[in-house]
Amino acid sequence: MMKFFEIAPFVHIQYAYDIEKILYKSRSEFQDILVFENPYFGKILVLDGIVQLTERDEFFYHEMLAHVVLYAHPNPKKVVVIGGGDGGTVREVLKHDTIEKVYFVEIDEEVIKTSRQFFPQVACSIDDRRVEIKCMDGAEFIKECGHDIDAVIVDSTDPIGFAKSLFTEEFFRSISNCLKDDGFFVTHSESLLLHKEIVRETQEVLGQVFPVVDCYATPIATYPGNWWTFAVGSKSLNPREMKRKCEIETRYYDDEIHSHVFVPEGLYKKLMSGKLKW
Amino acid sequence: MMKFFEIAPFVHIQYAYDIEKILYKSRSEFQDILVFENPYFGKILVLDGIVQLTERDEFFYHEMLAHVVLYAHPNPKKVVVIGGGDGGTVREVLKHDTIEKVYFVEIDEEVIKTSRQFFPQVACSIDDRRVEIKCMDGAEFIKECGHDIDAVIVDSTDPIGFAKSLFTEEFFRSISNCLKDDGFFVTHSESLLLHKEIVRETQEVLGQVFPVVDCYATPIATYPGNWWTFAVGSKSLNPREMKRKCEIETRYYDDEIHSHVFVPEGLYKKLMSGKLKW
Repeated sequence: MMKFFEIAPFVHIQYAYDIEKILYKSRSEFQDILVFENPYFGKILVLDGIVQLTERDEFFYHEMLAHVVLYAHPNPKKVVVIGGGDGGTVREVLKHDTIEKVYFVEIDEEVIKTSRQFFPQVACSIDDRRVEIKCMDGAEFIKECGHDIDAVIVDSTDPIGFAKSLFTEEFFRSISNCLKDDGFFVTHSESLLLHKEIVRETQEVLGQVFPVVDCYATPIATYPGNWWTFAVGSKSLNPREMKRKCEIETRYYDDEIHSHVFVPEGLYKKLMSGKLKW
Repeated sequence: MMKFFEIAPFVHIQYAYDIEKILYKSRSEFQDILVFENPYFGKILVLDGIVQLTERDEFFYHEMLAHVVLYAHPNPKKVVVIGGGDGGTVREVLKHDTIEKVYFVEIDEEVIKTSRQFFPQVACSIDDRRVEIKCMDGAEFIKECGHDIDAVIVDSTDPIGFAKSLFTEEFFRSISNCLKDDGFFVTHSESLLLHKEIVRETQEVLGQVFPVVDCYATPIATYPGNWWTFAVGSKSLNPREMKRKCEIETRYYDDEIHSHVFVPEGLYKKLMSGKLKW
């Protein structure tokens, strides 16, 4: 069988997947887009050579990205999702019936189109009446979106190329400005096993902007390094504390997972003081 | 650069590593042995096409395999290590100064030789006076080793081929027979993400023999699926409870990690009732 070889940045293990069939291949204004069928993972979406999601396991990432900060918030109404053109994060956000508005800010319209066509279970909520699609740069949108946002969720590609602007202090400062006083920010921040310097730097830069900064991690089989971290910035609330019980339908996230996934205190201290021994 | 492509069983992502230099390649009575140098992970040991350890990250696996049950035991003196011909598990076991005797039972002498030559930091404790090397089948050794063992640690290859006998009820029963009343057994049991059926079956078969059965999991970057599980059988003690504080030198394992790595109760219930939604 033909194989797809991933070209992941910062990674010293190359992941390869069997290709049952190539379903789509094109070049958008921003990136190469590829969709292929794999016998185990189902359809796989690849951007610039990097696996973004597989039908089989996308829920791990999307649930963990959306629900931790939304359940740490008492009443999230307005949410900005930056990136995540596949629609998976928007789908999870809309499971919270507190939500009144989701600004879905994806720079590359072609990703949304591709997801609508090949990943209908992922893109299923994009046309919800509460969703407003903005095809533009997330950093630009954040500067102009007012000051009444409850949560900003960054679901970007890796921090290279055009996504780099989503990992800077300037961007984090704009986000803080648009959030309400009990608002949350969350972004992925690579693998605690293979990219601990990126994990630490993201925490540090966030700490220059937000009074509360934290990190949780969960294993995701299709992201190399795999102990995948999420960085949280909060203007006041503690992300480890749930404000509501989880009563929505999920496949992995629940009340128990919420409290379990945060990096334990001692390990976090070692990470931040550069004392992790790997 | 030349690449090594892993042929892992039960796995739908193929891992590939750059080969800087092939250091050793041979065929023992039991398996193909390969050692090569990788620019990031250092030397890598491969048996029958499957990565067993890398210099850079072997401590994760060896520490987690050895210390959880040894610290759940008040005074481990006699330990049997089955497999683990590289010596990494024996190295970790001997860090406990309670230890008086380690039976190191490796079926393939060539693995021990290879590790001595290429992985001296892993094989460093094999010649300790407390170690008795037995080059024989682990299941055979267990039948004849008496009844005063404090812990049996299985550090085998994946449950296929000649290692299959190390995952049967018959073998687990022999182990229970050789353990003292407060004895522990531990073995790896594949990935909770990609092989949840193997994880569950191992728990079930263990449960037919041991009154206390449990499972802990830790991310290991070089084992595909990566949320790597360890199955514990205990004749009486609770493996989640440490009986001594960790005062040895480790790179990952410590008191905090001990209590953190056990599969949380709700998730464990879902696993065992076949209700994990992946």
